[in-house]
Amino acid sequence: MSHPKIAIFAASFDPVTYGHLALIERVLKLAVFDQLIIAVGINPDKPALFSVEERVEMLKEVTEKYPNVLIEQYSDLTAHYAKERGASVIIRGLRAFTDFEYELQMALMNRSLQPEVDTLFMMADDKYSYLKSSLVKQVAQMGSDKDLESMVPPQVLQKLKNKFGSKNKEK
Amino acid sequence: MSHPKIAIFAASFDPVTYGHLALIERVLKLAVFDQLIIAVGINPDKPALFSVEERVEMLKEVTEKYPNVLIEQYSDLTAHYAKERGASVIIRGLRAFTDFEYELQMALMNRSLQPEVDTLFMMADDKYSYLKSSLVKQVAQMGSDKDLESMVPPQVLQKLKNKFGSKNKEK
Amino acid sequence: MSHPKIAIFAASFDPVTYGHLALIERVLKLAVFDQLIIAVGINPDKPALFSVEERVEMLKEVTEKYPNVLIEQYSDLTAHYAKERGASVIIRGLRAFTDFEYELQMALMNRSLQPEVDTLFMMADDKYSYLKSSLVKQVAQMGSDKDLESMVPPQVLQKLKNKFGSKNKEK
Amino acid sequence: MSHPKIAIFAASFDPVTYGHLALIERVLKLAVFDQLIIAVGINPDKPALFSVEERVEMLKEVTEKYPNVLIEQYSDLTAHYAKERGASVIIRGLRAFTDFEYELQMALMNRSLQPEVDTLFMMADDKYSYLKSSLVKQVAQMGSDKDLESMVPPQVLQKLKNKFGSKNKEK
Amino acid sequence: MSHPKIAIFAASFDPVTYGHLALIERVLKLAVFDQLIIAVGINPDKPALFSVEERVEMLKEVTEKYPNVLIEQYSDLTAHYAKERGASVIIRGLRAFTDFEYELQMALMNRSLQPEVDTLFMMADDKYSYLKSSLVKQVAQMGSDKDLESMVPPQVLQKLKNKFGSKNKEK
Amino acid sequence: MSHPKIAIFAASFDPVTYGHLALIERVLKLAVFDQLIIAVGINPDKPALFSVEERVEMLKEVTEKYPNVLIEQYSDLTAHYAKERGASVIIRGLRAFTDFEYELQMALMNRSLQPEVDTLFMMADDKYSYLKSSLVKQVAQMGSDKDLESMVPPQVLQKLKNKFGSKNKEK
Repeated sequence: MSHPKIAIFAASFDPVTYGHLALIERVLKLAVFDQLIIAVGINPDKPALFSVEERVEMLKEVTEKYPNVLIEQYSDLTAHYAKERGASVIIRGLRAFTDFEYELQMALMNRSLQPEVDTLFMMADDKYSYLKSSLVKQVAQMGSDKDLESMVPPQVLQKLKNKFGSKNKEK
Repeated sequence: MSHPKIAIFAASFDPVTYGHLALIERVLKLAVFDQLIIAVGINPDKPALFSVEERVEMLKEVTEKYPNVLIEQYSDLTAHYAKERGASVIIRGLRAFTDFEYELQMALMNRSLQPEVDTLFMMADDKYSYLKSSLVKQVAQMGSDKDLESMVPPQVLQKLKNKFGSKNKEK
Repeated sequence: MSHPKIAIFAASFDPVTYGHLALIERVLKLAVFDQLIIAVGINPDKPALFSVEERVEMLKEVTEKYPNVLIEQYSDLTAHYAKERGASVIIRGLRAFTDFEYELQMALMNRSLQPEVDTLFMMADDKYSYLKSSLVKQVAQMGSDKDLESMVPPQVLQKLKNKFGSKNKEK
Repeated sequence: MSHPKIAIFAASFDPVTYGHLALIERVLKLAVFDQLIIAVGINPDKPALFSVEERVEMLKEVTEKYPNVLIEQYSDLTAHYAKERGASVIIRGLRAFTDFEYELQMALMNRSLQPEVDTLFMMADDKYSYLKSSLVKQVAQMGSDKDLESMVPPQVLQKLKNKFGSKNKEK
Repeated sequence: MSHPKIAIFAASFDPVTYGHLALIERVLKLAVFDQLIIAVGINPDKPALFSVEERVEMLKEVTEKYPNVLIEQYSDLTAHYAKERGASVIIRGLRAFTDFEYELQMALMNRSLQPEVDTLFMMADDKYSYLKSSLVKQVAQMGSDKDLESMVPPQVLQKLKNKFGSKNKEK
Repeated sequence: MSHPKIAIFAASFDPVTYGHLALIERVLKLAVFDQLIIAVGINPDKPALFSVEERVEMLKEVTEKYPNVLIEQYSDLTAHYAKERGASVIIRGLRAFTDFEYELQMALMNRSLQPEVDTLFMMADDKYSYLKSSLVKQVAQMGSDKDLESMVPPQVLQKLKNKFGSKNKEK
């Protein structure tokens, strides 16, 4: 195996949640990749709460304890970006609530665009089965800090408070 | 059982349809709740055809014959709102075309936010299986009054005509 | 409310699992029914590991701490049986892995057979999301006692051991 | 059979893809309709990349070799439009990644609006299973011409280049 | 169009239900096929309640009023059987509760085996959405005649009574 | 990485198809595992066409060209078997027609039984999307050799002919 084995975990990460982190830990525990690139996709058509720079920054803070992890941003098609970075694998998370049809459709298109890059699907922990970034934003807007504590790391919670204003209501 | 048993049926109701009413009648027929709160959710990020006030008004008109029904509006997370109102149950409608994954995801999050509030799923009549507010608006915009007659009560039909202008084309 | 409110939770219970018990506790916690009948369906076409008598016996043992719970067996169509017992509600459990199509199909047929009996769907705890009787039997046949401890109550575990023989392998 | 048999294949076609064309060829191969109307739906609420005129123009170019095919635009409800044009059949494509619930919901509503118009579902070739207009636009925006070659006919590819600017990067 | 247009509607029909008949009427109403062959598949691995001869007989009785309908039995792969009979179309029914994955899988395999035979999917009426032969048999075994009246034609009801014995219980 | 990385691809393989082989090639192409164990599960409750010995033999024949592949049989729970063999990964194939709910349910149970073994899901080629062993057996019983040529390797085709008898009908 002369080439380093590189995997890419690409998503919007708007913002990164404990669900993302559980999946990252699962990939690292496999111990089969020399490097894991966590890549923030820039999609000009999809409005985001956090800027790409903020999202990259938060990811760096919450993954600094993991070895062999690199945080990047990209605006290319995921399959081409993976190829350019020398990655042979795209990691995707599966959950009971995943839109499987969409996931398989993207994986088939990516394989069609770059046959030498393959998609691996893994499951995060089921305690995070209902957790996704869009719900986190909804909770941050309407709920309390306490609601968010089990959803995002403290650094992200702080940044969500800065966006929406703190609501320390007793609930 | 000293506490009154309160259930909440929360949705956008933009506008209320015969499908919503069939579900409300089913809940009332159970005769196990002392009060049913029909709650219009205010979501600033989701543009609506009718204002919250209009939606509350229409609901009051079409449910005035039902006993023990209360119409309210709320802008909190549904689970917190239910807790604040003393409700122990959130009612959700299931149909053959329901997005089950979304429904279960919300129910799990709500239970995580407020463990003492539980979600009950019920089925409306299958003759309304294809009926939902977004389709009603599409029909109101492009179809005739006759198309709407089997979808919404007369009071709502009138208000839809006021929004889009009447089209009494013979079809 | 002159009539007592009776709900029926009907299943094969071959055998009863912690998933069933979690759902029963959720129904009781609603505190809206005067009685919950847990009914073991006799289906001559579906071979079972435990006899109906054994299943009824196990259910009685593991639910004896719950008030207002009655264990019965029945061989009629569920909708008719519910009607005969004076029940107005059939309880069904929903999980992320539920076959929703089958559940809705049965609920529609039951409503067609007995319009005055309605189906309520509830979610058990998500920590039991992968637990169902058929998997329990597979694990009992091929796994160790330790594998079963988080799946079924001790009384059921003992009876599964009697069926398959104990395997106290260290795993 | 005195009346001519007319079928309608209605979609946004923003833009037309090889997947649409494969389905059109399948319908023509059935040889049971005297005319196939390919109808571009005008939906003022759904922003499009190409104007209705551009979409009609592209469809005319890529279907000019097919006999008995007519390209039209419409802004009515599909069921009413079909009725007005004398069509007895609405054609819809099914793929492994189709949103079946949405398709059946629309078909039931259309039958309710116009009982004499029925919906026929057909499968396009599975080599186009991941192909749809929204992905084509995403690829056109971020990928290369080569990526698009297997997705859209040359005339459409040229028009996509005009919209987004050519990117002949070597990938 | 020199060749006659022949469509095949193949199923187990064990027994034929009002759902099957509603679909047959929809196919005939299309008025695009010169002949509709209703074909009873013989599957030695799948035990049936009624013999193939009984199923063919029941189909003949309940379809005798339809023109251009032929009842047959076959034991070949459906795609090959369609080819041998000169049929260019296989008809399949879709319902909200259909197993779409299975349906598409079979349609893809059939197209692979016989590319010149295509599959058309149609919807039966939604009032029969929960009706299928396996449920009919279950109801016939455990329910009353009255339960079956809305599910199967009188001739089939009589034959089900002969199989299971009449139960004219008042329910 | 002192420990060898071992992955297990466990299935019934009754018989092995080109779909299985395409998935095996995808796993090997990843080049991240030191060994891939292809394991034939012995399930006394599920009748098989080929004996375990025949299935192991066929797998050995059709995978002899692949390096680092080992064929085994097992009768334990898959998670325990993986642990005993020192494997950290269970490979599962995903297709558009996969029963995702079942796959995730098994993966969650396996993780619960052996937290140090994880499940990786991969997609085989979409040209094999409709191919599975049960269909192969059905085609072998009712179809011709030619039908099977694109489904199974020649060695397996020969053994299927021996089971069912050759049918060289011209179709």
